[in-house]
Amino acid sequence: MNVREFSWSPSEKKAARTAFDAAFSRECDAIRREVEARLGRSANPPDLWRVHDYLSEKRRDVDRKYDYRYSVLIAVFGTLLREQWITEKDLSELRPDKVEAIKIIASL
Amino acid sequence: MNVREFSWSPSEKKAARTAFDAAFSRECDAIRREVEARLGRSANPPDLWRVHDYLSEKRRDVDRKYDYRYSVLIAVFGTLLREQWITEKDLSELRPDKVEAIKIIASL
Repeated sequence: MNVREFSWSPSEKKAARTAFDAAFSRECDAIRREVEARLGRSANPPDLWRVHDYLSEKRRDVDRKYDYRYSVLIAVFGTLLREQWITEKDLSELRPDKVEAIKIIASL
Repeated sequence: MNVREFSWSPSEKKAARTAFDAAFSRECDAIRREVEARLGRSANPPDLWRVHDYLSEKRRDVDRKYDYRYSVLIAVFGTLLREQWITEKDLSELRPDKVEAIKIIASL
């Protein structure tokens, strides 16, 4: 089955939104902690621009990655699972065929 | 006298470099403290991007402002004095006619 053609029940949509938002929140928290750590370590003024470069790169990554369209959501969750921003537990309310597809993509 | 035509003695060049670097260091420190404060106050993931916007704007400002060419340095010091990144004390080793020109620009 083409993962773009999965149907999403109302309860699955709700569970998907919760998992998606949790991943987004976790990744943003991790970026914030990394920025704080880098600021703490920075000794020279130019280090501040390295922190800015880091934040620019992460913002681009996050903007590209967190795409909540049902046509791409299986692939998005695959990436998030691979990168450990979600666990299988976050997906427990999705149908098993969706979870299998997500795990396959995560393993790529 | 055109401020672009001031001559700079070796000792003035040294004093100017010291004042310029001190201002740059102070302003970068202030930006870093502001970033840390904003990160501390930020509650939601999108706040992280407001911090990034702030840092992007400050980086542009600083890159534009800190121009160490003798042809523009009087104007640069005028801006730095107006914005209180330097004090008159930082300029005490420059010739009085330079300091007067810097103070005039600072008052604009």
